[in-house]
Amino acid sequence: MLSNHFQNGMDTARLVWSRLPHSEEGELDGVGLLSAVNNRNGVESLDYEVIENYAYREEQAQRGKLYVGYNVAVKWFFALLIGIGTGLAAVFINISVENFAGWKFALTFNIIQKSYLAGCLIYILINLALVFSSVYIITQFAPAAAGSGIPEIKGYLNGIDIPGILLFRTLIGKGGSTKYHLSSRWLQGFKSDRDRRDLVTCGCAAGVAAAFRAPVGGVLFALEEVTSWWRSQLMWRVFFTSAIVAVVVRAAMGWCKSGNCGHFGSGGFIIWDISDGQEDYSFKELLPMAVIGVIGGLLGALFNQLTIYVTRWRRNYLHKKGNRVKVYEACLISVITSVISFGLPLLRKCSPCPDSDPDSEIECPRVPGMYGNYVNFYCSKDKEYNDLATIFFNTQDDAIRNLFSARTIHEFSAQSLLTFLVMFYALAVVTFGTAVPAGQFVPGIMIGSTYGRLVGIFTVNHYKKLNIEEGTYALLGAASFLGGSMRMTVSLCVIMVEITNNLKLLPLIMLVLLISKAVGDAFNEGLYEEQARLRGIPLLESRPKYKMRKMTARDACGNQKVLSLPRVVKVADVVSILRSNKHNGFPVIDHTRNGETLVIGLMLRSHLLVLLQSKIDFQHSPLPCDPRGGSRAIRHNFSEFAKPVSSKGISINDIHLSSNDLEMYIDLAPFSNPSPYVVPEDMSLTKVYNLFRQLGLRHIFVIPRASHVIGVITRKDLLIEEESGDSAILELQSTSVRAQQHEKRMLVGNADVERPLLSGLLIQDHTPS
Amino acid sequence: MLSNHFQNGMDTARLVWSRLPHSEEGELDGVGLLSAVNNRNGVESLDYEVIENYAYREEQAQRGKLYVGYNVAVKWFFALLIGIGTGLAAVFINISVENFAGWKFALTFNIIQKSYLAGCLIYILINLALVFSSVYIITQFAPAAAGSGIPEIKGYLNGIDIPGILLFRTLIGKGGSTKYHLSSRWLQGFKSDRDRRDLVTCGCAAGVAAAFRAPVGGVLFALEEVTSWWRSQLMWRVFFTSAIVAVVVRAAMGWCKSGNCGHFGSGGFIIWDISDGQEDYSFKELLPMAVIGVIGGLLGALFNQLTIYVTRWRRNYLHKKGNRVKVYEACLISVITSVISFGLPLLRKCSPCPDSDPDSEIECPRVPGMYGNYVNFYCSKDKEYNDLATIFFNTQDDAIRNLFSARTIHEFSAQSLLTFLVMFYALAVVTFGTAVPAGQFVPGIMIGSTYGRLVGIFTVNHYKKLNIEEGTYALLGAASFLGGSMRMTVSLCVIMVEITNNLKLLPLIMLVLLISKAVGDAFNEGLYEEQARLRGIPLLESRPKYKMRKMTARDACGNQKVLSLPRVVKVADVVSILRSNKHNGFPVIDHTRNGETLVIGLMLRSHLLVLLQSKIDFQHSPLPCDPRGGSRAIRHNFSEFAKPVSSKGISINDIHLSSNDLEMYIDLAPFSNPSPYVVPEDMSLTKVYNLFRQLGLRHIFVIPRASHVIGVITRKDLLIEEESGDSAILELQSTSVRAQQHEKRMLVGNADVERPLLSGLLIQDHTPS
Repeated sequence: MLSNHFQNGMDTARLVWSRLPHSEEGELDGVGLLSAVNNRNGVESLDYEVIENYAYREEQAQRGKLYVGYNVAVKWFFALLIGIGTGLAAVFINISVENFAGWKFALTFNIIQKSYLAGCLIYILINLALVFSSVYIITQFAPAAAGSGIPEIKGYLNGIDIPGILLFRTLIGKGGSTKYHLSSRWLQGFKSDRDRRDLVTCGCAAGVAAAFRAPVGGVLFALEEVTSWWRSQLMWRVFFTSAIVAVVVRAAMGWCKSGNCGHFGSGGFIIWDISDGQEDYSFKELLPMAVIGVIGGLLGALFNQLTIYVTRWRRNYLHKKGNRVKVYEACLISVITSVISFGLPLLRKCSPCPDSDPDSEIECPRVPGMYGNYVNFYCSKDKEYNDLATIFFNTQDDAIRNLFSARTIHEFSAQSLLTFLVMFYALAVVTFGTAVPAGQFVPGIMIGSTYGRLVGIFTVNHYKKLNIEEGTYALLGAASFLGGSMRMTVSLCVIMVEITNNLKLLPLIMLVLLISKAVGDAFNEGLYEEQARLRGIPLLESRPKYKMRKMTARDACGNQKVLSLPRVVKVADVVSILRSNKHNGFPVIDHTRNGETLVIGLMLRSHLLVLLQSKIDFQHSPLPCDPRGGSRAIRHNFSEFAKPVSSKGISINDIHLSSNDLEMYIDLAPFSNPSPYVVPEDMSLTKVYNLFRQLGLRHIFVIPRASHVIGVITRKDLLIEEESGDSAILELQSTSVRAQQHEKRMLVGNADVERPLLSGLLIQDHTPS
Repeated sequence: MLSNHFQNGMDTARLVWSRLPHSEEGELDGVGLLSAVNNRNGVESLDYEVIENYAYREEQAQRGKLYVGYNVAVKWFFALLIGIGTGLAAVFINISVENFAGWKFALTFNIIQKSYLAGCLIYILINLALVFSSVYIITQFAPAAAGSGIPEIKGYLNGIDIPGILLFRTLIGKGGSTKYHLSSRWLQGFKSDRDRRDLVTCGCAAGVAAAFRAPVGGVLFALEEVTSWWRSQLMWRVFFTSAIVAVVVRAAMGWCKSGNCGHFGSGGFIIWDISDGQEDYSFKELLPMAVIGVIGGLLGALFNQLTIYVTRWRRNYLHKKGNRVKVYEACLISVITSVISFGLPLLRKCSPCPDSDPDSEIECPRVPGMYGNYVNFYCSKDKEYNDLATIFFNTQDDAIRNLFSARTIHEFSAQSLLTFLVMFYALAVVTFGTAVPAGQFVPGIMIGSTYGRLVGIFTVNHYKKLNIEEGTYALLGAASFLGGSMRMTVSLCVIMVEITNNLKLLPLIMLVLLISKAVGDAFNEGLYEEQARLRGIPLLESRPKYKMRKMTARDACGNQKVLSLPRVVKVADVVSILRSNKHNGFPVIDHTRNGETLVIGLMLRSHLLVLLQSKIDFQHSPLPCDPRGGSRAIRHNFSEFAKPVSSKGISINDIHLSSNDLEMYIDLAPFSNPSPYVVPEDMSLTKVYNLFRQLGLRHIFVIPRASHVIGVITRKDLLIEEESGDSAILELQSTSVRAQQHEKRMLVGNADVERPLLSGLLIQDHTPS
């Protein structure tokens, strides 16, 4: 009897499981859904799909190909939307920032014509107001929007659920760097983990593409830095998104050039075109460039280390005192920054303008409040400029543009650059980790290009060659600092090439990155990894730990007791098990007629909670649910099993059960994942690690060594030819035919007549007992 | 007794296995070796490493960090060598081809000043001689060098061993397209599959980088099109190789510009810089561009289909008749091509030169025998040119340059382009698959740019706008045909951008590729997939077949009988098993004391053959080898177990055993892989497929459902912190200490004292019986 029920239940589960989530099947550009769901997102989504599908399979079998096409179209449409949305957001942010900053500097310049003190005060106050509003929004409404967001995204795409990461309000709070979160709005429509992750990946690439107008760099960034798994089909969609972003941004820039974006809004968009830079380089220059790489590695590693200390100190002492302290802190730093950036240039002596070249469009000094090099700030004579003000008292974009600029040899003195470097580095370390939605890219480029230009000055002086451009050295410096701090390689290289629009510099950038990454790696990990660790985001790195080589799967489980659920479990037991621990998955065990035990699946905590909450699957009998009972499984509203987009979901403590409920039973077979991944207990942990990470799993069962091998699967066993003809439709038809048979069988109640899917799987004896 | 031996043997194997292949461990930029070897290359390499390591572990434990650093350095050094080598080879080939072709055309032009007939004959003869020599070399010496080689490389990196692919003579025979094979020379030094594949991946990217001067495109090509697995650490090395290639090629080009490369050798290097092309595009133009995409998809799919028919026909009828037929065939095609390319322009009426623009550097007509547009060929007047000769009677590189050229509106008449398209398309279909080492990229670009330019002509005529460049349309046409035929996306897009050196065209190229790939996919598979299938290369596609969704792991094994080996096996049995089938891996089964069976590992055919051949592990006793016997395992020269680089290895028929030998036994435990990947029998085949492909396996054991779960591994179990301090050295020390303990234990002969690695793994009772 028991074995028969077992058989029936498993048969049902198996049949359900073999029915495909047609809702997404046949995606022209993707791997088959079942596999994707099983493998990419771990077992959860499979479970979910199983349940959903159980109800909808008939309906969807009829929808057929149209539905398949619709789903593909929807995916591409969302990719398009993300692209357009990210592009527009980037344009909007850029224009706002540019106009705000332009207005700020214009106002300050107007005032300092009369009084430097008043100008300084106004400048400080404006900055303070901006910082305050930003910090206020973040601390009050959207704590997840603080920082660059990259560690969180990295964690999410590494397979971790971070509560709140996909909240819409995080997007709003992000303000200054919306890019990474724009995708969240539409995520609601996507129920499987895999689809959500695909969208976030698209959004991530789109963000980088928008920030740097670097579509290829965006794709590579998502590929190299963020996702722990990848497939080439997704790559094409991600690339499409990035290209759309590039089109939107380019169109907006064209529109802005005709003066539609306000007085100041045309200079924005992080892009420092140095295509008019150095045409060629000699072998002698490789030495100073290598020096830049070493400096980048050292300063980058130091930066990572310092930010760790600062972040730890902040967390342990400062931020314990509440949100108010965060606001004070950010405001204090803002005032200090304003004072330094206004005050230091005042102390600096002005330099005479270089002899003007009639061909050059560079004015010296420039018109106050406009963009360009050679800022006249606190200078006595008309033909003078203040080199420190040119980089310090300016927007970061403009400062970088000035540092990168070609044909401006000796615009900056070594002294000014050094002063700026020290001050800015210190400020960047302190600012990093405040409750401000700011990234690390632009400050990194500032720091790097400053010492790069410094090295450039020495090189020009030493080699006395005039075709050396200091701007090129500044670019290399920027690459080296980012490489030394973030330890990205390919994507950073491509991003730098794309933002400077100069393919010829690629080998040089690569040389510098090779050195700076190697130097940095000698000291510590990359910035995002360190920050992720500090924030408690458990990233699985691509490389297993050395220690794991000596450990087995069994060792990893430690002394943890496995809490298995019987197939039919008492509600009270479920509640006590769920209360007693925080595991998210439980093996389900059944007994065969011979008294042997068999692992029949993996049950998720979240699904158990749904079952407990809805109560409709409770039964009085401690025996497996009878398939004769009819369409029991469709009692559920299947979307209940879907993972909530952004909340934490229900907890066991939210569920209230009467004492009657507690005495009832649930049959878990229809709700469990019938074949989670397994590893033998003595498999090397490195092997297990790679399995876990590369397939994006959440649970792996460790099982004893097998007693025998049923078969060996090799390459040729997997080279199955698809049937000719329209297989999708054939399959759908056969699915629906089989489903009908299955229903018939359910009605007749004789499960022994046909069990094609389970034959040989379980016990041989299945007469009702 | 048995169980004790089992215990000891397993312990030994386990210990060996846990000892690390220090020879490659600690690679700074890579995943840990054990994991990589286990997971990437399938089980074979692990086995190999186990054995090698068993002998060398002591030695290597002492070498320590230096050795680790040395290995990393070697890998980067090889990447550097591949880069330089590929770059130099590309330069050499290019200069040779350019000078040859230049000389050929110059000679022909000289002769046609006197007699067109004589010129035609000379032209035909020269072409014939070139083709004949190439075909002769290939058919006689290096059959693997025929064609582009991409399907073979794809297969190799997909996990298939193709005999001869890494032969040095393939490289030599390759002549015209060395790129993909350059890495093979150094492969001898790399013993593990993984290292070899890494090198081939580098070489593949380097080849594309060299051919198109597209370093980023090369990396993406290797990533998207070729490898079935990937890791970001490898990416950096691949990118490095590509960049080196770019540097070498660039340096050579600079050198050639100063006239060092012969009279004709400066025009080469596939690079069609259209950075002076169209600056902007209007929305109206998107329609003709979409039309280009559709044409590309249709013509590309047709091309794939036609080449399938031609290849099949050739294989079934023509090439059965031997190599001589191949030579005749290629020569015949050469003559036809020469006649058409010489004859058709003769029939074409010349056009008058356009009004010359003093700023433009374009001469009309150009000097005979030099590069450029506006070829004067069989024209009566001085100020006339022959548009068909400009593309037909020219090297392909120059023809493409002319088709891409900007500011040459209406240089080509629609009639000429159409004639050329039809003829060239037909010739390309026929030529594809002959025994000539030629790729499909350049002909594809030729075809595509022709109809692209045709569409461009119509667009210019229709929209009457002068800022439309026909050259830009030609570029889009080229992209569309390659997309429609090869179905590459991201990498093709980047390659096209890099070869044209114009980032602004990216969105347009992408649009065209999206359309052409979608249209092409509606008809058939990509060119390389189809060709790989025709050649019997069993590629595992990224997407599992639809059918697999309904199949289980068990179904894939079919009725295949599993041939298991007992742990201690009679030599005669091994021989008969190896003779009776062609399996490459066999499960090894042992019995516990209670009579239960346990799967203790996977034994490879190749290792069995080595054992049979060397005979030194034969023993008289049918009992497991006694670990007390001392250093039995180091009797072997462990490099015997290494996979040969390019030969097929030994076969069972090569091994001769005496009847005495046949009566002896071998203990397989020390030579088998103790934990191959397993899947439960009822796991969905799509899941198995993804496991197999993503981890690059060769064998998976299908086992029965487990009776219980020992533990559940989740993310947190894998977040093991490395010990602080210099862990690598610590680990190495502890390794050597433990190894000493192990040896001591071997001498004392008491395995019960400590079994830290196996505790609880096996049977509880282990007293000697």
